[in-house]
Formats: sequence, C-alpha cells, structure tokens
Amino acid sequence: MSAKLIGNTYGKSDIRLTKVIRNGARHELLEFSIDILLSGDFADSYLQGDNTKIVATDSMKNTVYVLAKEKNFSSAEAFAILLAEHFPRTYPQVRSTFIQIRQTSWNRIAVDGRPHDHAFVCGGPELHAATALSLGQDSSTSIAGGISNLLVLKTTNSAFKNFIKDRYRTLNDADDRIFATSVSASWDYANAAVDFPSAHEKIRTAMLETFATHMSYAVQQTMFEMGKAALATCPQITEVRLECPNKHRIPFNLEPFGLDNKNEIFVWTDEPFGNITATVKRE
Amino acid sequence: MSAKLIGNTYGKSDIRLTKVIRNGARHELLEFSIDILLSGDFADSYLQGDNTKIVATDSMKNTVYVLAKEKNFSSAEAFAILLAEHFPRTYPQVRSTFIQIRQTSWNRIAVDGRPHDHAFVCGGPELHAATALSLGQDSSTSIAGGISNLLVLKTTNSAFKNFIKDRYRTLNDADDRIFATSVSASWDYANAAVDFPSAHEKIRTAMLETFATHMSYAVQQTMFEMGKAALATCPQITEVRLECPNKHRIPFNLEPFGLDNKNEIFVWTDEPFGNITATVKRE
Amino acid sequence: MSAKLIGNTYGKSDIRLTKVIRNGARHELLEFSIDILLSGDFADSYLQGDNTKIVATDSMKNTVYVLAKEKNFSSAEAFAILLAEHFPRTYPQVRSTFIQIRQTSWNRIAVDGRPHDHAFVCGGPELHAATALSLGQDSSTSIAGGISNLLVLKTTNSAFKNFIKDRYRTLNDADDRIFATSVSASWDYANAAVDFPSAHEKIRTAMLETFATHMSYAVQQTMFEMGKAALATCPQITEVRLECPNKHRIPFNLEPFGLDNKNEIFVWTDEPFGNITATVKRE
Amino acid sequence: MSAKLIGNTYGKSDIRLTKVIRNGARHELLEFSIDILLSGDFADSYLQGDNTKIVATDSMKNTVYVLAKEKNFSSAEAFAILLAEHFPRTYPQVRSTFIQIRQTSWNRIAVDGRPHDHAFVCGGPELHAATALSLGQDSSTSIAGGISNLLVLKTTNSAFKNFIKDRYRTLNDADDRIFATSVSASWDYANAAVDFPSAHEKIRTAMLETFATHMSYAVQQTMFEMGKAALATCPQITEVRLECPNKHRIPFNLEPFGLDNKNEIFVWTDEPFGNITATVKRE
Repeated sequence: MSAKLIGNTYGKSDIRLTKVIRNGARHELLEFSIDILLSGDFADSYLQGDNTKIVATDSMKNTVYVLAKEKNFSSAEAFAILLAEHFPRTYPQVRSTFIQIRQTSWNRIAVDGRPHDHAFVCGGPELHAATALSLGQDSSTSIAGGISNLLVLKTTNSAFKNFIKDRYRTLNDADDRIFATSVSASWDYANAAVDFPSAHEKIRTAMLETFATHMSYAVQQTMFEMGKAALATCPQITEVRLECPNKHRIPFNLEPFGLDNKNEIFVWTDEPFGNITATVKRE
Repeated sequence: MSAKLIGNTYGKSDIRLTKVIRNGARHELLEFSIDILLSGDFADSYLQGDNTKIVATDSMKNTVYVLAKEKNFSSAEAFAILLAEHFPRTYPQVRSTFIQIRQTSWNRIAVDGRPHDHAFVCGGPELHAATALSLGQDSSTSIAGGISNLLVLKTTNSAFKNFIKDRYRTLNDADDRIFATSVSASWDYANAAVDFPSAHEKIRTAMLETFATHMSYAVQQTMFEMGKAALATCPQITEVRLECPNKHRIPFNLEPFGLDNKNEIFVWTDEPFGNITATVKRE
Repeated sequence: MSAKLIGNTYGKSDIRLTKVIRNGARHELLEFSIDILLSGDFADSYLQGDNTKIVATDSMKNTVYVLAKEKNFSSAEAFAILLAEHFPRTYPQVRSTFIQIRQTSWNRIAVDGRPHDHAFVCGGPELHAATALSLGQDSSTSIAGGISNLLVLKTTNSAFKNFIKDRYRTLNDADDRIFATSVSASWDYANAAVDFPSAHEKIRTAMLETFATHMSYAVQQTMFEMGKAALATCPQITEVRLECPNKHRIPFNLEPFGLDNKNEIFVWTDEPFGNITATVKRE
Repeated sequence: MSAKLIGNTYGKSDIRLTKVIRNGARHELLEFSIDILLSGDFADSYLQGDNTKIVATDSMKNTVYVLAKEKNFSSAEAFAILLAEHFPRTYPQVRSTFIQIRQTSWNRIAVDGRPHDHAFVCGGPELHAATALSLGQDSSTSIAGGISNLLVLKTTNSAFKNFIKDRYRTLNDADDRIFATSVSASWDYANAAVDFPSAHEKIRTAMLETFATHMSYAVQQTMFEMGKAALATCPQITEVRLECPNKHRIPFNLEPFGLDNKNEIFVWTDEPFGNITATVKRE
C-alpha cells in the first residue's frame, strides 16, 4: 500500500506573554495567549524524519518573547501582524503563517474612585481576539479582530414563535423569554491603518447596545442586527462573523406545586445548547 | 469482618436558579448555583436500603425553585438562610443543613452611558459566595459571605526576599516583581441583621484597594492586610479567611538572545502555583 | 449603510443520549454527545425575524431521542447517518446537514475475571468520534470516523535533532526524549457498507502499535506512519487527518543541586504546546 | 481596630513530576501532580513581611525533583511519605506537613497482544490518590490511599423508592433505573508496611465488583457495601471515606411522540447532581 502526504501544518499554541510597558508611574499591561501555525516546505520531516527545514516550536516560543521585547506595540492586532510577517521574512520555506491571539481583559482597580496606576482586576471572562495571516513576503497580511465569551442576558424583549409545528415540536411559542448567549465575533479589517483598541471598543459597544435595545423575534435576527451595527460603527471593517451559542434559561414548571411561574423562576443550563452563526458583509 | 457507618451526608449540588424580579420596567437579576448538604438520621438508607426517612435530592431541587417563587429575597445570603432553616423545620430527622451558593456577577449594559433596565453583561469570572449552616430549629443559623476567583495583578510594589537560603533554593531575591493572584475569601457575619449586598461591596472594595496600595514584602503580608481591611470596613463580620493561589508571572530569560529583560517580559503560567491561606479575626 | 447576510448555519449542540439495548441479561450501552448543524433557506429569520421555515433547535433535540427509540443502530457512525438523512428528507428548506457525535468509552467491569453483563467502567478520556454530512436527498452522505484525546506516551525511541539553528533556538538536539501526545484523528469512509466498530478498533490498534514501535525522528514522521498504518489496516477508508498536540515532558535541570539527570526526572506541562497536523491519503 | 492572625498555611500545588525508572529495556512510568502544604512558625511573614523563616514555594518545587532523583520509590504513597518527613526534618519551624499526590493512570500499549516495554496509553480519567501527614519528627506519619473520578455505570439492579412523599416530591418510585456515579474514595493505612500498588488494586477491584453485583436499593446502600468490601479485602486499612456524585441518566419522556420508553432512552446530564458521602470504619 502506498500513501501520500497531502496537507501539513505545525506550530506552537498557548504561548503566554505578559508585557508591562512602564511609562513612568503609569503602567500598561498586555497579556496574551498566542498560537502560531505554519505551513510550507516541511514534507521531509514527515516523510524521512529530516528536520533541516524545521523551525522548532520551542524556537517559535522564544521568538514571541524576543519580538515582544524588541518591538513597540500596544494591541494584540499589531503584535499578530509583527509575528505573521516575521516568519516568511526569516524562513523562505514558510508558505503561510497564521497567528491567533487571545487577550485577557484587565481593568484598573479603582482607588478612591480613580483608576490605579499599576493595579488591575480581571474585567470578565471575555477575551479580545486578534488574528493575522501572511501568505508570504509578497502579499499583504490579512488582519481580523474579534471577541469571544462575551456573556450577555436580557430578561425581556425577546420572543420566539411561529416556527415549524410538526411531530418533533414540543416547545411552545414564547412572546417574552430570557435571551442569554455567549457572543463570539470576528471581523476583517480592510488594512492595518487602524487604531485597533479604539475600533474594538466601538464595535463591542455597538454590539452590546444592539443586543440590549433590539426587540428580538429570533436569536438569528438579533445577530444580524449586531453584525450590521458593527459594520455601521466601524468603516474600517468589511465583514463580521458571529457565533452565538444559546445559554438557555428554561422556565421551571411550578404547576405541580400549585404555583404560577410568571416568567420569574428559571433553570440555567449548559447542555444541550442551540448554536447559531451568521456572516454579515458590507454591501 | 464487621464494619460500621461513622459518618454520612447527602444532598444536591449545582442547582441552577435564575430569578427575575420585575419591578416595572427595571428588572433585577439573581443567578445562583446552589449546593444543599444534609446530615441526620439517615443510616437506614446506608445499612438496609430503607429510604423512608430520605428526602430525595430531586425534591431538594424542587424545594429551591418553590422557595425562590414563594419568598422575597434580594441576596444570596438571604436565600441561603431561608434554605438552611427550611429543612430542619420540615424534616425532624435532619440534624445539620449546610447551604452553599455561588452567585454569578452580572452588570447592567450601558446604553448611551446609562445602565439598561433589563440587559446585562457578565461582570467577570469572580463569584459572590454565601453559605448558611443550621444545626436545627433551636440554634441560630451561621452565615458567611465570600468571594472567589477575584483575579488581581499589580505590576510593582511587590517584593519577596530574605527567605531561606539552602540547597533547595534557586530563586533570587526580588525587589520588584509582578504579584498576581486569584483571591478567595469568606467571612462570618455576627448575625443576619445585615444589608448583605452593601456589606459585600464594601469588603470587596476594601480588599481591592489594599491589594493595590499596599507595599508588599510577602503575599502573606498583603493577605493579612486585606483581612484587616475587611474587618475594619465592615463591623458586622467577625473573621475573614483568605486563600490566594499565586498566578505566577515569571521573567523570561532574554540573555541567550543578547537582550536585557528590564522587568518587562514575563511568562504567565498556571502550574505549579504557590498557595497561601490566612485566617484573620477581630481582636 | 447597508449589509447583507452571506452565510448562516444553526443547530443544537451537546445533545446527550444514552441508549441501552437490552438483549436479555446482556446489555449494550451507547452514550453520545451529538451536534446538529443545518444550513439552508433560513435567511428570513435573520432578516425579518420570520421563523416559519425554522426547525427549533429544541425540536432537533427531540428528534434525536425519537430516532434513537425508533431506529436500530449499534454505532455512532450509523446513528450519524440516520440523523444526517432525516433532516433533508423532512424539511425541504435544508440544504446541508452536518452531524457530529462524540461517544464515551465504556468497558465492562470484570467480575471474577469475566466481563459483566450490565456494569461498566469508563475506558478512558478518549472519545470515539463520528461525523456525517448530507448535501440533500439526491447526494450520498459522507461519513467520517475518528478518535480524540487518545493520550499516549513513550519513554524512548524518540529523537528530535538537526532542526534550524539560528538566533531563536535554545533547544538542544535530543537523541532520546519522552514523546507524549493526545492523538486526534479522523478518517473518511468510502461508503457506509462498513462494520464501523470493528473498523474503528482496527484503526485504533494500528495507530497505537505504530506509535509504540516506530523509531521517531520527528513527531511529524510518526504521525505520517500512523496515518499510513490506518490506511493499510482498513481498506474502506480513503484519507486520514491527524492532529497531535505535544504533551511536553521537559527534563528538570538538576545541575544546581549537584545531580545528574540521566533522562529520569521530567516536568509535565500543558502550556505552551507544539501542535502538528498531517493529512494522509491513499495513493 | 485590631486584628489577629489565628491560622495560616502555605505551600506549592500542582507540582508535576514524571519519573522514568529504566530497568533495562522495561521502563516504569510514574506521573504525579503534587501539593505540599505547611503550617508552623510563619506568622512574621504575615505580620511584618519578614520572610527569614519562609521556605519559598519555589524551593518546595525544587525539593520534589531533587528527592525524586535521590530516592527510590515505586508508588505515590511512598513518595508522599518521603516528602512529608523531609520538611519537619529539614526546617524546625514546620509544625505540620500535608502532602497530596494525584497519579495519572497509564497502561502499557498492547503490541501483538503483549504489553509494550516503553509505550503507554492513558488508562482513564481516574486518578490514584495518596496523602501523607506529618505532625513533626516525633510523631508517626499518617498515610491515606485513594481514588478519584472512577466513572461507573450499571444499567439495571438499581432501585430507589419509598422515599419521603410530600409537597416537594415529583420523582416517581423507580424499580429499575440506571445508576451512574464518579467514585471518589480514600482510606487510611494503619502503617507504612504495605505494598501500596497491590493494596490499591485489590481495593479498587473489590469496590468495582461490589458496584457491579450489588442489588442497590439506594446509592447510600451501595456505597456502604463498597466501603465494607474495601475493608474486607485489605486488612491494612482502618477506615474508608466515599463520595459519590450521581451522574444522572434521566428517562426521556417519549409520550408526546406516541412512543413508549421501555427504560431504553435517557438524557445524561451533569447538572444538578445528587452528592452522597459515607465514612465506614472497621468495627
């Protein structure tokens, strides 16, 4: 029997970088978990165990810390671009370089009402995401921003009705239900001439405000509106991809106890969960 | 061979309750994960499979939702007390009832700068904790508040030096290091005549401000100061227990690359971790 | 500003099914976590909140349990096919149906050395995976088998050397190191006329034996050999995709303590990790 | 306000050790995650930031790897004892030393039906646990063995009925249900003169066989029988503590679909869960 290698990638994942920028007394804090994934002329390693063209994943890890020291940057997006362009420039056998960064959310601790210079508290389970893809020195680098695990919940102004009624349906129409989800979104920047932290903040705010104020007749509909709002608020992005797993809040049946559940008492549950995606593009 | 049963407890864990309090347009949101643990005269179930004195853990779950509907409460502590006192009152075979609640942190979404009436975003990985212990109808219920997974980090004003120098030591003295930890704390209330959400908020703020402003010569020392600050800010508590796993940020060695790491570039890591506890009591 | 919807999918994830097949005293146990993902003519829900073509994800969940009862099957692959073909047959607006199943590994408990009829112990963290994709009633259903989280470790016969030596490299050549990984693999079946449990078992065995006996000069090389072995042992599969995150075991530096680490004492760590993929096709 | 320190402990957690014992071609593999917790005369660190009596937790970590190299041992229990006795002997300010070890389960890969000399596959999510407690050089060290996350399931011979019928009960009596749990158990050894791996294996087998063959009228009853079986099989242990969270399999209601669920189709769920403990002592 004969077999051939028709695809291969390799890299280092979950490289954990903390960078402190000490502008006098006021410190800036960046914390990233970084994945690097290369493809290119690496087949000899697979076919003969010949590693002469292989950049060790340990060397990739070192590269992250060296570039973090040598380069100036103040966003995950900017560092993703730096890394994506480093590998094809340094190693001609590299064909594509994909960088993915998850940034922890840190807020300054308020002391006597004022944000502290060097003390921080975690701002939430949400992560600020950034990806960069280079297809070599001769092509421009693609950049995407994003957010993940942004947990939101609204207690009203969400309905779900008139869906298919057949043998498999037991769910009633709901005029007023809890809508909770963990938003993941990513968006493509047209180019790198962007103030990334500010663009990110504007998009996040637009999505949160839309979630809060939109009268929802379907999770799908709210997602489309959130994507539209992101495109409207930030002219530098061209496309938004959203994924919203439902974090169900199920009304608890109080009838067996002679009580009436007036949309007050719910079970929150992780399993199973509806999962909905949408890709929205500027027209 | 002969064996005897010398201890037993049972209950239901991770009962997930969402309660929405609809005061007109402005909704309040409470989300709890609740554990119930009973001990008492239950040996017959263990020894003979005789369940006549057993409250099914499924019935405990139902009890949570029924009481959530029937009772008014606006804090995890208050609901913990309600549950702790329900079981000994209802079932004479119950000797002790231990209730533990973890409350998710939800903040109102800001829309045009104002907190929204019914839309929320998760406030962080931190959980507000509450426990209540009843030893029966004739004794008063013990109540504890707490917090867990409060992630904090400071980039300076933390040292660690002059610790034991012997064969097993390789760590250098540090005059200026990152101090990061995930604070867990619990505290005993002297009685139930407390505005629990307000007390919780004051204690949380006092601990955060102490963490931020204290010049730390040891994690231990900062923890003692945080415990003292909690006792000072809230006269209704008598004792504070703290557990602070170190979330290490380790300076990355840039020497092999001809670079000097001026306290800028770190590896953040989950494993292994220092773990420190302290119990601080009002004198 | 104007926006258009250019992609959408939705479904239910983590539907948890236990099916017990009671052949007299000897019981068979199937435990699945199932994801269903549909795409099709669902834009009205996104654009107008019109759900008339929407199958509720709750109905999808019900469908799983109804088909589990009504149909005979004895593998995750067979049930994935049943589900993948149900949706396009039942709902003409469905264009593609993607089913993904993760099966828990249960082994019979040995009692007096014999496998018990109805008592089981979990066989490991590994999951048996199956996916089926239908593109409608007129096309045949694609079927893939797989495995994930198969943790393996060998203490010798693994080297890694002669990789690129440059400024970013600090790792030494290793002639003899620990090789540990968590294998994920998936493979395409040419058609459904397969005894899936037996094919799965043969592929798993071939991959494990190759891992154990192959003299490895690169993780990449061992992966290619494992893919080849899978293709060789099971003529019904056409392609194998492997992903092997490195579960690093790093020699602990005992020099500061005047000791010589003769490849005996290691730190096992989860972060960061090398991650390597390969796709191997029958030639 | 004045506060006093009334309790303190500190140590290092999740120290991850791999030790390979190379007896010629046949290698033994030990993988541990280790927690060390000390108490003693450490108040000066809390009260004044004076670390002169403090053993750095980093030094504790180093100690683990140094002792792993210098000492011969072949079980988690034996290494726990070595560590527990090291600290009070080395540092007079230490009053108590608590060591906790979780050992990963690795089995030899079968190649042509024979266990391989140096290649292993993970034996399951279950962990072999060991703890040792020293209260100083003049007292003997307490030793406990244990197991955690041992997932078991039986499809019949489990009932639960005749429990309290009142307002809060909705669960029906069950004559025949699935019983699934994740067993955690720990047991005290009377002294250290034990072949620990063999004792562990015998206790594990006795508990599994009891789970499989016992006609269960309550989870509580089966747990007591499992504790009794452990004491009966291993005369060197004096007490067994069990904790069995219920891993519920809930019959899916097929009535709305005109189908009869003959104890075949279940939902497996993680939340909420019954949790039951028992302590069984030799009489």
